Amino acid sequence: MSDRPRPPAVAVVEPQTPGNVGTIARAMKNFGFEELLVIDGPPLEPDGEAYGFAGQAREDILPDHARPSFDELVDSYYTVGFTARTNQDATSHVRFPFVPADELAAELAPVDAAVALVFGREDNGLTNAELARLDRVCSIPASAAYPSLNLGQAATIALYETQELARAESQLPDPTRDRASESEIERLYDRIEQFLVAIDHPEEKRAKTMRLVRRLIGRAHPTDREVITLTGVFRRGARRGEAEED
Amino acid sequence: MSDRPRPPAVAVVEPQTPGNVGTIARAMKNFGFEELLVIDGPPLEPDGEAYGFAGQAREDILPDHARPSFDELVDSYYTVGFTARTNQDATSHVRFPFVPADELAAELAPVDAAVALVFGREDNGLTNAELARLDRVCSIPASAAYPSLNLGQAATIALYETQELARAESQLPDPTRDRASESEIERLYDRIEQFLVAIDHPEEKRAKTMRLVRRLIGRAHPTDREVITLTGVFRRGARRGEAEED
Repeated sequence: MSDRPRPPAVAVVEPQTPGNVGTIARAMKNFGFEELLVIDGPPLEPDGEAYGFAGQAREDILPDHARPSFDELVDSYYTVGFTARTNQDATSHVRFPFVPADELAAELAPVDAAVALVFGREDNGLTNAELARLDRVCSIPASAAYPSLNLGQAATIALYETQELARAESQLPDPTRDRASESEIERLYDRIEQFLVAIDHPEEKRAKTMRLVRRLIGRAHPTDREVITLTGVFRRGARRGEAEED
Repeated sequence: MSDRPRPPAVAVVEPQTPGNVGTIARAMKNFGFEELLVIDGPPLEPDGEAYGFAGQAREDILPDHARPSFDELVDSYYTVGFTARTNQDATSHVRFPFVPADELAAELAPVDAAVALVFGREDNGLTNAELARLDRVCSIPASAAYPSLNLGQAATIALYETQELARAESQLPDPTRDRASESEIERLYDRIEQFLVAIDHPEEKRAKTMRLVRRLIGRAHPTDREVITLTGVFRRGARRGEAEED
């Protein structure tokens, strides 16, 4: 085993439609989760809806899923139950306190136990009796007017938010890697100033214009490539401006 | 109109399956978005799949959706295109630089224009030619091994991440509201210490045990109700301990 802890398992209690299990399996694969637990769900047929919705998860997560009982789930994992409806305050402990979904990964990171993220039925979610047996309650903030997410969509967001507990690398390059250096950006500002001189931009307006340019480019955090391109454009523009003066 | 700016519109370019449009409409309703734009998509029949997946969005978002052309979309909105595949660096500008989904809301908050979040086809997403005409590229981090999200799931995450631009209130109570005060928690610690004395916990171990208790309860950020309950439990425990000594 590596130092990396096992990613949380994903448990679905009494799902009614295989398609939702397939959607959840796909999100698991997208975010690096592996272990799917179905508690009292319908059979998942290889030519059925679950496999149809699962994308590449049809190759491993769906065929490898396990079917523990709810008792076995509670006995074997540190369990986090998801619900759209929390209690308003601490007068009841079943759905309160809760952790919002975007804080769950940080909270789970130091937990040295097998973790399971637990989702309930399409129509009624997890019952109070079930939630009372789980270790933690998590909720996804949504519109007060309609906070009830579809099961597959709720699980997708939960797995997106906790992906750092599961996947190694993302597909995205480091967005800071290509940010131009300050010296390159300063060189660009010099070129723009020379350009303003060359095109005879009124002297009394130059400082103000340069401030505006600095603010705009500063806000945009330009890449190497952008700065090099713009530097070239203004060098060319300055030469043309000077040439016309001759 | 209130001070609150109009929530971003959600545009779907050439969706192939009405079910995905229904899933997107439901996520819009869950997170407070209102304006759905379908560019060259299939008809959405009230007894069809789109309405079946839309939950309460079948009452307004789906029947009210508009069908602009791609040119009209680009002309009328500040457009943010979503793609799973970005470029690795700045040698191409079509898919780079990009903003990760969790930074998009902060970036869009000061934008004083009608914004549209733009999603592409189920199989191929947005083309390079389309992305080149949009104002900004956004990407959802996922597993490098399988970063390609289902259209409905990608839009669900994007709308979850930008909901603060759209909805007024969430369904969740303020989680800090019921955190017990420090003085209440200190009173609990006093009770626990008295309890340790009453049950004859070895004197040389008391300080260490109390440090452990402080660390544990401190980490859990207990609510009023929890502290009151535990204070009562330890008061009772101390009395029982003393009674047995008599």
